Order: sequence, then C-alpha cells, then structure tokens
Amino acid sequence: MRLENDLLLRVAQGAEVERPPVWLMRQAGRILPEYRALRAKLSGFKELVETPALAAEVTLQPVDILGVDAAIIFSDILVIPEAMGLTYEMIEKKGPSFPKTIQSQKDIEDLIEGGDAASELTYVYDALALTKKELAGRVPLIGFAGAPWTIFAYMVEGGGSKTFSKARKMLFREPELAHALLEKITRTTIAYLKEKVKHGADLIQLFDSWAGILSPALYKEFAIPYLRQITEALREEETPVTVFAKDAWFALRELDALPCQVIGLDWTQNPADLRKLLQTDKAFQGNLDPCQLYAPGEKVAEATKKMLATFGKKHIANLGHGVYPDTPLEGVRAFIQTVQAHRY
Amino acid sequence: MRLENDLLLRVAQGAEVERPPVWLMRQAGRILPEYRALRAKLSGFKELVETPALAAEVTLQPVDILGVDAAIIFSDILVIPEAMGLTYEMIEKKGPSFPKTIQSQKDIEDLIEGGDAASELTYVYDALALTKKELAGRVPLIGFAGAPWTIFAYMVEGGGSKTFSKARKMLFREPELAHALLEKITRTTIAYLKEKVKHGADLIQLFDSWAGILSPALYKEFAIPYLRQITEALREEETPVTVFAKDAWFALRELDALPCQVIGLDWTQNPADLRKLLQTDKAFQGNLDPCQLYAPGEKVAEATKKMLATFGKKHIANLGHGVYPDTPLEGVRAFIQTVQAHRY
Repeated sequence: MRLENDLLLRVAQGAEVERPPVWLMRQAGRILPEYRALRAKLSGFKELVETPALAAEVTLQPVDILGVDAAIIFSDILVIPEAMGLTYEMIEKKGPSFPKTIQSQKDIEDLIEGGDAASELTYVYDALALTKKELAGRVPLIGFAGAPWTIFAYMVEGGGSKTFSKARKMLFREPELAHALLEKITRTTIAYLKEKVKHGADLIQLFDSWAGILSPALYKEFAIPYLRQITEALREEETPVTVFAKDAWFALRELDALPCQVIGLDWTQNPADLRKLLQTDKAFQGNLDPCQLYAPGEKVAEATKKMLATFGKKHIANLGHGVYPDTPLEGVRAFIQTVQAHRY
Repeated sequence: MRLENDLLLRVAQGAEVERPPVWLMRQAGRILPEYRALRAKLSGFKELVETPALAAEVTLQPVDILGVDAAIIFSDILVIPEAMGLTYEMIEKKGPSFPKTIQSQKDIEDLIEGGDAASELTYVYDALALTKKELAGRVPLIGFAGAPWTIFAYMVEGGGSKTFSKARKMLFREPELAHALLEKITRTTIAYLKEKVKHGADLIQLFDSWAGILSPALYKEFAIPYLRQITEALREEETPVTVFAKDAWFALRELDALPCQVIGLDWTQNPADLRKLLQTDKAFQGNLDPCQLYAPGEKVAEATKKMLATFGKKHIANLGHGVYPDTPLEGVRAFIQTVQAHRY
C-alpha cells in the first residue's frame, strides 16, 4: 500500500524531503488522557500489550490525536525474554521484574530461542497487522526490539537497576556464558523482527537503553557484534533500521559502521558536531531533552527551532528519550507543530 | 604535620612521583567485613555518619586493612541539604528519601544557608579532626561534597531517580528559582568545605553524580558556574580540588577550565584520548570499571596494568565510580597491589 505520508521512510532512505518527520518515543502511552482512560479499565500493562485490538487502539491514538508522522506499535522490549522462557511482571511505579533470572549455563540451555521463541509472539504480529489495516496508509508503522545487550541486562539482573552490576559482572566473570546468551537473544530477535516486517512494520528501531553503562571496550565486545548480526539480517528485508544506543557517545563510530539507516541521539549529543566528526550520510533521529516539554509552549517552540537548525537535513525529529508520562500536552503539541511548520 | 605518604598530594600539585597513588571511591563501606560488623550494631547509616568516633573508625579501616594511599572521610553528600533544613532518611536497599522537598520560592526562602547551615555540621568536622589525629600523618585525608547540581537534584526530586525529571523540570519552568536554590547550596558548600579544610582535609573532591542527565547547554548554565564559585573559593585555602562529574563527557573542556587540580573520569573515558584532546596539565583520577573487580585476581591485575598504561603520568588510580558493596576483596586487593607495584 502506498503511504500518504512517507516522510519518515524517505528520510531513512536518504531521499530529499521538504521538512523533517516527527514522532515521539513512548508517544503511545500515558501522556494521552485517552490512553489513561483505556488503561484504567484493564487488569494491567501486560493485558494491553497482549491484546491485539487494544494494542492497535493505543498505537493509533497519537496518530489520530496528535498528528505525528509515524505510528510505533504499542508493545514492550521484554516480550523477547518472555518468549524465551522468562516471564516478567510489570509492577506499577517500579517497572519490570523477573521472578527467574539467568545465572548459569543450564539456565541458558533451557531457554527457547530463535524462530521457536519468536513464534510465541503472535499477539504482537496480530497487533501490527491490525494497526496497519486501520492506519490505511496514513503514516508508516514502526516496529521495535531491545538491543541484545539491553535484553541480556534485564534477563541477568532481573529488573531495572542503576548499575546493572549483576549483568555486568557476568561479562567479567563468565564472558563465554554471556556470549552464549547474547547469541540466543540475537537469533530470537532476528526471527521476531522478520515477523514484524512481514506483518507490516515499515521501519525497525533497536533500543539499546543501557548502552551507556558499558565501557567502550565492553560495548565493542558484547553489544556491537550482535547489533551487526541483526542489522545485517534485516538488510534482506529492505526495511530501514534505526539504532538508538542511549548514552553510548563513546561508540558512535562503531554504530555508524553498522548497516543501519538512522542513528538515534540522546540530548547530550550535538548533531552538528557529530555530523562533522562521523562524516556520515546516515540520518539522525532526536534529540530534544524530554524535560524541555515541561516548559510553556512558546519556549518549547523556540527550543525546537534551535534543535532543527542544529540538525539540518537528514533528520527525524524526536526527543532524546521516551516522553515522560507527566508531560503536559501543550508542550507535546508545540513540539510537533513546530517541526511540522518547518521548511528546509 | 608532614605526611609519610603524600603521593596523592604530589600528583594533585603536579609534582613528579615514582608511581600513582591509589584509593577507591566508597572504600570506607560495605566491601569490608569490619565495616559490616560495626554497621550491624548500629540503628542505621545516619548514626554512623553523625557519630565522629564511628565515622573516624570506618574511615581508617581501608587504610589499615587495605593499605590505600589516601583516606576519605566517611560521610554523605546529603548532610548539606539536611543542614539547610531538609532532613533525609536513608532507606535500606532503596537509598535516600526526603519527606519534604523544594517546590516553591517560599521553600527556598525558608532554607538555612551559608555559614549558618555549615555550622550545623560539627559532627563532620569532629570526625575529620579525630581521623586526622589517628592517621598520624600516614596518608592524606580527603574531604568531599556533592556538586551543587547534584544536591539540587536530590532537594527537588526528593530521592534517587532514573531521570530526575522533577529536578530538571524546574530548570525549564522556573530557571530563576533554580538559580536561587543553587546559589544557596553553593554558599553553604563553600562554608562547609572551608571548615573541612580547617579540620584536616588535605584535598577536596566534588562529586557531581548526576551530571550526565543534563544536556551540555543546561550543564553550562546550571552546573559549571557553581563549580567555578566553589573551586575559586577553595583557591584561598591552597587545598587541591578534584572534580568528578560522572557521565559529563560533553563538558570536559568546561571542567578542565575550572581552577581545580584533578579531573575524575568514569570508565567510559579513554584518558589517553582525553589528554590529547584537552591538552591539559591537570591530573586525572580513575577509571577502572567497578565491575572489573568481580573478575579473578589475575584478570584484575591485567586490566589494572592496561589502565595504568592508558593514563601514563599525572594519574591518581581509582575506579570509575564507587566500589560496589558486593565486590570480592580479592579483586580490591589485586587492584591496589597492582597499582602499588607499578613504577614509572
């Protein structure tokens, strides 16, 4: 199906566009009263993730209500560990928690992996297909997954952490075990993302949320090779890929060398400096500080214009991280409208 | 009093030394069984902080037991907000929590500040004087404080946070209010650190633990000017100062421009690259990944040697962050011994 608004894909493919496309990480979520109303009727977060009609509904909300230039399927990066055999719970105000974690070779051997694991996630593929149908070509649909290191971090640590010291400990004490787990996560993620593309994802984003807690040497050893495997596997699909490795300022050359089309930037990055440094043709995505949207609308507009000037062309406008749940809609709308009024 | 081992001070002052000094951030703490035994007898963390004889005892433990080249007074950066009028609780396994936080101009007006606040902290000064006496000139004694932005973050947020979005929100919505609070924190910190020097601190370290969550522009506006005020005020004391702004890779030029003698580096930094980039004469402190100490002793020694080679001279050996509480002593000792066996 031909897309009415294909700005996102054109930028990812390196084509000229009249203005940057704009969407927000976590746009399908608690910033919208319509989301909160639906969510209040449910038993929990996972019911929403696992019910295709509901996931599709909240995926469409920001397209309908905010007019963003892309939809991103409502889901969670932790469906992958779950499909591999580690169930998680989403605890209100605390975040994810895994009753069972990966500690030994036996734990890794017991995991389901690859296509077998990916085939557990039909609810995600159904949600994609349904969303795609309901979008009716208005905007592209983004599919996503966690990067292997980030998924590994949750599977070993058992939940969120300031330091992820248990997960990092395995890299130092049992590097072969760590690689074995990362391999399984990677094979599963590839199978999963290929299914996502098959069911309607127009672009894939990989989130390496915990990239910044690894040293450059560890990131090169335990993260980059698996991102490479995934991005190379996705080349066959001809679907563009965005890699967003938060706080990985020290690995940008390595990220740039991956066969992906877009690099996501957090708000500590200066895209103009980075464009010069990397001499890259890739598009950049980002990177307004999510807290900027707490400011009054006119201040948001001003900061957004400044950001657009720093990026220049080859830019997908977004925040530098997921939008915070208590962000006022005034700030969100000012951000989106300022980008959409921009012309190169 | 003349110090027997003044390696730390000589490096900070730019003198030639035969080998790098070594100490560990959080060395007085849960890594030592002797600390845990003492701590188990007390009502809580704050009893230890507020009882000079006990604080001195745990400060001396790593000098006596591990043979590090410096002592750092056992205390907490949050004594500053407390002296200003915001009491905190230290909740086991959760971290600090402030029942009352700063939300309005009135809250800021109500704060005690400067010398009046600093004079509340006699237990810290007594602990320093007692430690200094018991050290009897063996090694230098380090005093410390949180950097104003980090103290601000706790006072507004009310505790630890992944995003410190409430604290950052104030920077965007009420920048004048934020500056007013930062001014008061700064004046208090200066008075406090001058007292610390008077009571025996040979070197001062400023911890900007939450530097990395600000954008470069915000860090320049809300952090650097206050670090400058403190480092300039401490010039009069002729006491060297270390500034450790964790994850502030984007502000290293600005940190280098401060009148401090040492820059602390986290484990994402490559000191050799940084030395070239900054062309600085300052000493660097750091930066082994704390998780490296989980590895077997011989691997720790190997990684430590590699680190020493990357730093070259003008180096104070340390981890890139505080030592994690569950670190095996084998790793800690291998780290210290490898540095102490090194010769330039």
